[in-house]
Amino acid sequence: MITKNNILENNTAKKALHQKRFTPVADTLTDQGIDVESILKKLDTFQIAIPSWALGTGGTRFARFPEGGEPRSLEEKIEDVGLLHMLNASSNAISLHIPWDIPKDAKAIKELASSHGLLFDAVNSNTFQDQPDAKVSYKFGSLCHVDKHVRDEAIAHNKEVIDHGVALGSKALTVWLADGSSFPGQLNFREALQRTQDSLQQIYDHLPADWKVLVEYKPYEPYFYSMVIPDWGTSHLLASSLGEKALSLVDLGHHLPNTNIEQIVAILMMQKKLGGFHFNDSKYGDDDLTVASIKPYQFFLIFNELVDGMQNTKNPELSWMIDASHNLKDPIEDLIQAIEAIKIAYAQALIVDRAALKKAQATNDVSAAQEVLQNAFRTDVRALVAESRMRMGGAYDPLRTFRENQIRKELIAKRGLKTVATGL
Amino acid sequence: MITKNNILENNTAKKALHQKRFTPVADTLTDQGIDVESILKKLDTFQIAIPSWALGTGGTRFARFPEGGEPRSLEEKIEDVGLLHMLNASSNAISLHIPWDIPKDAKAIKELASSHGLLFDAVNSNTFQDQPDAKVSYKFGSLCHVDKHVRDEAIAHNKEVIDHGVALGSKALTVWLADGSSFPGQLNFREALQRTQDSLQQIYDHLPADWKVLVEYKPYEPYFYSMVIPDWGTSHLLASSLGEKALSLVDLGHHLPNTNIEQIVAILMMQKKLGGFHFNDSKYGDDDLTVASIKPYQFFLIFNELVDGMQNTKNPELSWMIDASHNLKDPIEDLIQAIEAIKIAYAQALIVDRAALKKAQATNDVSAAQEVLQNAFRTDVRALVAESRMRMGGAYDPLRTFRENQIRKELIAKRGLKTVATGL
Amino acid sequence: MITKNNILENNTAKKALHQKRFTPVADTLTDQGIDVESILKKLDTFQIAIPSWALGTGGTRFARFPEGGEPRSLEEKIEDVGLLHMLNASSNAISLHIPWDIPKDAKAIKELASSHGLLFDAVNSNTFQDQPDAKVSYKFGSLCHVDKHVRDEAIAHNKEVIDHGVALGSKALTVWLADGSSFPGQLNFREALQRTQDSLQQIYDHLPADWKVLVEYKPYEPYFYSMVIPDWGTSHLLASSLGEKALSLVDLGHHLPNTNIEQIVAILMMQKKLGGFHFNDSKYGDDDLTVASIKPYQFFLIFNELVDGMQNTKNPELSWMIDASHNLKDPIEDLIQAIEAIKIAYAQALIVDRAALKKAQATNDVSAAQEVLQNAFRTDVRALVAESRMRMGGAYDPLRTFRENQIRKELIAKRGLKTVATGL
Amino acid sequence: MITKNNILENNTAKKALHQKRFTPVADTLTDQGIDVESILKKLDTFQIAIPSWALGTGGTRFARFPEGGEPRSLEEKIEDVGLLHMLNASSNAISLHIPWDIPKDAKAIKELASSHGLLFDAVNSNTFQDQPDAKVSYKFGSLCHVDKHVRDEAIAHNKEVIDHGVALGSKALTVWLADGSSFPGQLNFREALQRTQDSLQQIYDHLPADWKVLVEYKPYEPYFYSMVIPDWGTSHLLASSLGEKALSLVDLGHHLPNTNIEQIVAILMMQKKLGGFHFNDSKYGDDDLTVASIKPYQFFLIFNELVDGMQNTKNPELSWMIDASHNLKDPIEDLIQAIEAIKIAYAQALIVDRAALKKAQATNDVSAAQEVLQNAFRTDVRALVAESRMRMGGAYDPLRTFRENQIRKELIAKRGLKTVATGL
Repeated sequence: MITKNNILENNTAKKALHQKRFTPVADTLTDQGIDVESILKKLDTFQIAIPSWALGTGGTRFARFPEGGEPRSLEEKIEDVGLLHMLNASSNAISLHIPWDIPKDAKAIKELASSHGLLFDAVNSNTFQDQPDAKVSYKFGSLCHVDKHVRDEAIAHNKEVIDHGVALGSKALTVWLADGSSFPGQLNFREALQRTQDSLQQIYDHLPADWKVLVEYKPYEPYFYSMVIPDWGTSHLLASSLGEKALSLVDLGHHLPNTNIEQIVAILMMQKKLGGFHFNDSKYGDDDLTVASIKPYQFFLIFNELVDGMQNTKNPELSWMIDASHNLKDPIEDLIQAIEAIKIAYAQALIVDRAALKKAQATNDVSAAQEVLQNAFRTDVRALVAESRMRMGGAYDPLRTFRENQIRKELIAKRGLKTVATGL
Repeated sequence: MITKNNILENNTAKKALHQKRFTPVADTLTDQGIDVESILKKLDTFQIAIPSWALGTGGTRFARFPEGGEPRSLEEKIEDVGLLHMLNASSNAISLHIPWDIPKDAKAIKELASSHGLLFDAVNSNTFQDQPDAKVSYKFGSLCHVDKHVRDEAIAHNKEVIDHGVALGSKALTVWLADGSSFPGQLNFREALQRTQDSLQQIYDHLPADWKVLVEYKPYEPYFYSMVIPDWGTSHLLASSLGEKALSLVDLGHHLPNTNIEQIVAILMMQKKLGGFHFNDSKYGDDDLTVASIKPYQFFLIFNELVDGMQNTKNPELSWMIDASHNLKDPIEDLIQAIEAIKIAYAQALIVDRAALKKAQATNDVSAAQEVLQNAFRTDVRALVAESRMRMGGAYDPLRTFRENQIRKELIAKRGLKTVATGL
Repeated sequence: MITKNNILENNTAKKALHQKRFTPVADTLTDQGIDVESILKKLDTFQIAIPSWALGTGGTRFARFPEGGEPRSLEEKIEDVGLLHMLNASSNAISLHIPWDIPKDAKAIKELASSHGLLFDAVNSNTFQDQPDAKVSYKFGSLCHVDKHVRDEAIAHNKEVIDHGVALGSKALTVWLADGSSFPGQLNFREALQRTQDSLQQIYDHLPADWKVLVEYKPYEPYFYSMVIPDWGTSHLLASSLGEKALSLVDLGHHLPNTNIEQIVAILMMQKKLGGFHFNDSKYGDDDLTVASIKPYQFFLIFNELVDGMQNTKNPELSWMIDASHNLKDPIEDLIQAIEAIKIAYAQALIVDRAALKKAQATNDVSAAQEVLQNAFRTDVRALVAESRMRMGGAYDPLRTFRENQIRKELIAKRGLKTVATGL
Repeated sequence: MITKNNILENNTAKKALHQKRFTPVADTLTDQGIDVESILKKLDTFQIAIPSWALGTGGTRFARFPEGGEPRSLEEKIEDVGLLHMLNASSNAISLHIPWDIPKDAKAIKELASSHGLLFDAVNSNTFQDQPDAKVSYKFGSLCHVDKHVRDEAIAHNKEVIDHGVALGSKALTVWLADGSSFPGQLNFREALQRTQDSLQQIYDHLPADWKVLVEYKPYEPYFYSMVIPDWGTSHLLASSLGEKALSLVDLGHHLPNTNIEQIVAILMMQKKLGGFHFNDSKYGDDDLTVASIKPYQFFLIFNELVDGMQNTKNPELSWMIDASHNLKDPIEDLIQAIEAIKIAYAQALIVDRAALKKAQATNDVSAAQEVLQNAFRTDVRALVAESRMRMGGAYDPLRTFRENQIRKELIAKRGLKTVATGL
C-alpha cells in the first residue's frame, strides 16, 4: 500500500512543474494586492468530514452496480478515510451513521482513527429504515409519528447515537428527519410538526453541554407529497425553539428547482443559525452527484457567502461534510474530486476583492460587482490548492497518485470484488 | 345598467332549475351527516376583496391588448367592483394601490363605495416604479436601498399610504417589496435584509393600534437573481421581529416550482402569523392566471388547511384578495370566474369529513385519507354556491347575467374603447 | 375468497342508493344535450392494463416497507389482477416484465389468465439491472453502450422478450431505456443516440407483423445528468426513423417541472405517433404516486386531448397501463383508486361540450372555453362510472368491497407476511 | 469619441502586463499538446451579432428604469454596435427587428454599417405586438390565428421583413412566434400547430435561395398555459416539414427548469437542423440576464457540444446572437461582458482534450471524463481571449476602456438623458 513517503517522493519529482504553475498565479494575485500566504494558511487548516457510507458504491431504487474492494467493516471504512486524508490532507474526520457503523469497542476504534490522523465528526441517526430486529416500524414516520411508542423508540435511538458519539469524541448530532407523507391528507401538517418539535426537544435535552444538534431539511424524498421539515424556514423554526445548541444544516441537493441557496446561507448566518453543510451537486433533484460537477459557479457563490459570513457574523463554527452517492465512479476517486472542488471554491472565495465588491454595492455598480466575482471565479487557483496540500503533506495530484499506485486493485485483492459496504 | 331588481327577477325565473340541481347534492351531503345550512351560512359571509388594478386589462413586458370600457378613475373602479358585488354578493371590499388610486376626497370616495355596499380592504404601497415627479429612483431597491435618502422616501411613502387608508377605513397595509438583485454580487444579502428590517420597523411604528401590516414574499421578478424577501421563511423572520401586528401574506403565484403551498399555510397558521392571501394561479412562474384555472386540487388543499387552521389555531382573521392579471379575458368576467372558483374550493373544504380524516390519520390509513379529501373535491358543490349567492341577493349565474345584459358593451359606450385603467 | 356472486348480491343491496345518485347527474347531462347511454358504452369497454410489478409494495433508494400477502409468483400476480378485474371490470390485461416474470409454461399461464378473463398487454424488457448470472453489465448503458458485446446482449434480451410475448398473445413491446449519464463528458450524446437507434432497429426488425414497439422517454433517473431518450422529441425522432410500428409512450411522471403534457399528447396524436400511456402522478419528480392524486385537472386535460385525438386524428389505438409505485398503500387498494380516477377523468372528458368548445375557440372567447372545460370537470361523474362498472359485473364500490371482505388479511394468511413480489 | 488609435495606444501601454499573463497559460497549454496559435485563429474570426433592441435599457412588466444616452434611431444603434465592435473586434453584425428598425434608405444604412465594419445578420419579425396603425390584432395569435385575415397579415409582414433583409444583405429570417394560450381550452393544440405550419410554409416559399429561416421555441411567456412552438421537438417537426432552409434556433432562456440544453444542441446538430443561438442566462425563467452570469459551466458544456458538432457533423454554419434584456446595467457594458463570456466559453471548449475525452468515454472512465472537461473549464483563458482581441485591433480591456473614456457620459451629452430606444 502507498505510504506518506511515496507521496513525498512523488511530490519532489513534481516540484519544478508545480512551481511553473504556482508562480504566475501567485504573482497575479500579489499584483492584485492579495496576501497569498494568508490564503494558503486558510486552505491548510480547512478540513471536510467524510461520511462512513461514502466509501461504498451507492445505487438508485432501480439498481446498484458495485465497484469491488468496498470496506466490509467500520475498521476498513476508517482505513479508506485515512488513505484519502493521506492523499489530500483535507479530510481529517469521519462521520458515522448509526446503526450502520456501531462501534463495538469505542476505544479501539478511536485509536485506529487516531493512528490515521482522524477525528470523529457529527454522528448521524437513522429513523428512515426498519432494522431487522426493529420493535416498531418507521413506515409512517418516526419523530412525527402519530403513535407515541414509535416516537419514543426514535427518540431513544437518537439519544443512543449521541452516546456513541460521546464515546468517540464527536461533538454534534445530525438529524436528517425523513418523515413526511406521500398523499394529501395522510398527515396533519401542524400536528406532525408539533410532535416533531416535542420529540426533538427530548433529544436536545440529552445533548452534552459542548454538543450541537444539526437539523437538516429536504423538500421531498423519501416521501413525495410533503416532508415534515421541508425547507430552511421550518428547520430554523425548530432550531430557534430548541435553543442555542440547535442549528440548521444545509444539504445542497435538498432544494426546489432554482432555489437561491447562497441567500439562504447568508440569512442563516445572519441569524447565527447555520450549523453546517452536506456537499454534493444536482441537476434535477437530490441527485447526490459530486459537488461542483454541475453548477460550480453557484457553489463558488455559496462559498463567497460563507467566507463573508465567517468574517462578518457571529455564526458558530461550521461543520463541513461530503454527502454524495457514488453510483458510477470509484468512491475514493469521487471523494478526491469532491475535496478538490471544495478547496477550489474556497480558494476562489478567499481571493474575492471584498473592498472592491463593497464599493460596487455601495454605488449600485452592477457591472463592477459582477466583474469582481467573475474575476475570482475565472482565476485558476488549482496551483494554490496544490501548494497548500503539499505543504500539509498531501499528494501533488491525489487522483493520479491513487491511480498510478493501483490502489483500487489492491483493495479488491484484499477485500474481494463482491463486497457491500454496511448500510448500502 | 343592470339593477338588483333585474337580478332578482332572473333568479326567480331560474328557481325550478336551481332546485333540481340543489336538492340532490344537499340530500347527498345530508346523508353524509353534513349540516348543509351551516355550510351555506359560512359561504354567505365569505367576502373577497378586489384590487383596484384588476379592473383593467393587464399585459406582459412584450405587449398589452386592451379590452375597452376600462375604468378611467377611482370612481369608475369602485363602480365596477360595485357591479361585481351586485352580481356575486361576495366581493364587498376594494383594495387600493397608491399612488395609482390616490383619493382626492376621501369622504366622498368612502360614501361612493358605501353606496355600492363596499368597504376598503388593505391598502397597497408601490416602491417598484419611479413616478414622473419622483425625487429618488427605486431602480436599485427601496426599503433595502444602500442610500438612506431612498429608504427614507420609501418609508415616508408607506406611511402616507397608511394615512390614506386610515381616511378610508382600511385596517391593513400590504407591503409587496419588489427589492432584489439581478446579478450575483449586486447586493449584500445580509445587509439588504437588515436595512429592510429597519425600514419596516419605522413603517410598523406608524401603524394605528387596530391595523396590521402584511409582508408579502416572492422568489423572483422583477429582479432575477435574488429578492430581499424571497420566501415564507424570510417573511416570517421579519414579521416575528416586527411584532404582533405584522403577518405574512401568501400570493399563490410567488413560489418556486412544485412548492407545497398548503403546508406553508398550515405552518404559518400554527405560528399565528398568516395574514392573508392573494389569489391567482400559475403553471410556470408568477403567471397571474385566474385562480384555480390550472391547479384546482391544490387550491382545494390550501382551503382545506385554511378551514382546518381557522377551526384549530389562534391565527388572526385572514384578508382575502384576488391578485391576477387579466390579459386576455374581460377583467370583470375573469373576476366573476375567480370568485366562483374560490367559493367552490371553500365549499369543498367545508364538506370535508374531518372526523373521518382524523381517524384515517391516526391509523395511518393513507387510502382512506385520500378518499376523504377526494370525496369532498369530487362533489359538485356549484348548486350550494349558487344557493348561498342567491340568498345574499346575487345572481343565479353571474357570468351569464353579465353577458346577457351586455354590460361590457355599455361600459365601452360610456367610457370608450381606448381607455387605460390608471396604473396599467 | 370473494366471488362474482358476492359482488352481485352487494350491488343489489346498493341499488336504491345508486339510483339516488345516478338519476340526477344523468338528468343534468341529458338536459345539456348529452347522450348518457353512449358515454356509458365507452366507459364499459375501457380497459387499463396492470403491470405485473404493481402487485407488490414498492420502495425508494432509502427503504422499502412491505405490506404482506404479496404475490410470490407469476401465478399469484395473475390471481391478483383477476381479483382486481372482478372488482372493477376495467383491468382485463396484465403487462409482464421480463426477466421478473418469465413464464415457464406459456400455455398454462395463458389459460390461467384466461380463466380470470385476462389478456396479456405489452411486454416490458429490462436492461437497467444486472441479473445474477449476467454475462455483461448494464452499469454504463445497454442499447447505447460503447461496447458492442453489451449492446448485442441487450438486443438479444429484447428479442427474447418479444418471443415470450408472442407465446402469450401480447401485441407490443415497451422499451423503457434507462441508459444515460450522470456526469458531463461521460457519454457522447450523438454517438450514444446513434448506437441506440441502431440497436432499436435490430429489435424492430424482430417484431411480428401485427406488433408495435413503444418507445418511452424520461428526462432523468436512474442517471442524473442525461438520459439517451430524455423527451418526446427524441422518442419521436427514433420512432419516426424506425417505422410505422414504432410509437412514443408517455409516462406521466417522466417530464421536467411544469411541462404541458396535454400538448405533447395532442402533437403526438397529430403525428399518428402516440402509442400509449403509463399512468401515475407526481408533485416533484418521477414520484410514481397514484394517478390523479396530485393534479387531477391536468389529468382531465390530458384525457380531453385523448378523446379529441381519438375522434379527430388517425392515431393508432392506444395502450393504457398503470405504472405507479405503491410504497405506503396496499397495492390492490391503490390500483382500485387509480382505475377509479382514470375512469372519472375519461368520463369527464367524454361529457365536454365539444361544439361549444369549438365555438369558443373560433371566436377567441377565452372565458367561455374555460367554462366548458370546468363545467365538465366540476360535474360529479362518479355515479356514471359506478353505473357502467355494475353493468359490466363489477362492484358498486370496489374499495369498500375489498375492505369489507378483508381480502388483504386472507392474502396474508395464504401467502405470508414477509413475501416479496419478484422484481421488488 | 474614442478612436481605433486610442485603443492601439492603450494596448501598447498594457503590452508588458498582457505578456506576463499570456505566456504562462500559453506555455501550460503547449505543455498539454495544444496548438495555441490555431486556437487564437478560431477566436479571431468568431463574431456574434448584436440585436438592434439591445442598445437600450430593457424593463419588466412592472417598470423600466432608463439609463440615458440610448440610441434614438437606427443610425444611432448602428453607431453603438460600431463602437462595441471597435472595442471587442467580435461583433461585426447587427440584427434588425421590424417594425422597430425599418430602414428608410436601405443603401445609406448599409453604407453606414459598412463604415463601421458591420454586416446585417438575421432579420426579426414581430407579430407579438399591435402596431398603432394595425389592421388586425395579434392579441390571440398571428401565424396560428383562427382568423385567416390575421394569419395573412402576419404572413405578409414576415415576407416584408425578408424583403427588408434582402435590401440590407441579410441571409436569414428569425421567427420567434409568440403565439399561444393562457387558459386550458383557449386553443386547439393540433389545429393551431397545423395553421402555424401552413403559415410558415408560405413564408418559407418567399425565402431567397441562399436564405435560411430560423424557428425559435419557448415554453411560456407571453402566454402562460401553452405556446404553439413550446420545445425543440415542435420546432424540429416544423423545420423538417418546411425543408432544408428551415432550422431550429435555441434561445438559452427558453427552457423548462433543469433542461439539459447541451444535449438538445447535440441532437439538433446530429440532425443537421441547428440554425443558431440567442445567448443569455437565467436562474428562474426567461430572465434575459447576461450570458454565463449565472451558469457558466453549463454554458461551457454547450460550447463543448458546439465545437464537437462543428467538427463532427454536417450541420450548416451557425448564427450567433446575443438576446438579453439590460435592465440594470449600461447596455453597452452588459454587451461587453456578454461577448467576453462567450469568447471565454468558446476558448475553453477549444482547449478540451478531445482525444482524452474520447478515450475516457470508450472505457466508461467517468472520473477521467470529468477531469478532462473540468481541466479545460478551470483554465484561465482570459489572456488568450485578450491576445486574439488585440491582434484583431480590439482593446486590451474593453470594459475599462469604455469606462475610462467616459463614453456613456458623452452619449448622454449627445443624445440626452430621457431617450428611449425604439421598440422599448
